[in-house]
Amino acid sequence: MYVIIVYDIAQKRVNKLCKFLRKYLHWVQNSAFEGEISEGQFFEIKKGIEKIIKNQDSVLIYKTNNPRWLKKEIIGKEKNPISNII
Amino acid sequence: MYVIIVYDIAQKRVNKLCKFLRKYLHWVQNSAFEGEISEGQFFEIKKGIEKIIKNQDSVLIYKTNNPRWLKKEIIGKEKNPISNII
Repeated sequence: MYVIIVYDIAQKRVNKLCKFLRKYLHWVQNSAFEGEISEGQFFEIKKGIEKIIKNQDSVLIYKTNNPRWLKKEIIGKEKNPISNII
Repeated sequence: MYVIIVYDIAQKRVNKLCKFLRKYLHWVQNSAFEGEISEGQFFEIKKGIEKIIKNQDSVLIYKTNNPRWLKKEIIGKEKNPISNII
């Protein structure tokens, strides 16, 4: 599956969450990661996020079974170009 | 089409961009809006964002033709619950 993760978390937990998400996904922007992961990884990511944020912040996960169903456009500067989404 | 917009912009332009995006979309989190829009609105939104950010910041737009192709999960606090994505 292809996921986009967008977080809104306290500054003190940003580094920890980023470090964790980088193990699975590509950083695309401040507060956003994306990438192709397995069902097992999806489960691990959710558990990891829950452990880090402890219900104090908000993290959104958008997922699609086929990245071709999702198009991406960038306006302005591209912070970290990746081409997984067609 | 259904769009998710994630922005990473200078603090001084946040209010202007948010005010603009609220005319078309639902605020879902700091730095993220989503909603169903027409092709014409999509064009207007892109033009509006370009005008506000003037190539100084970065805005990502993810779009899908069918919101059913996209699932959303929220971890932690839900900042602004909407149920457009099934």
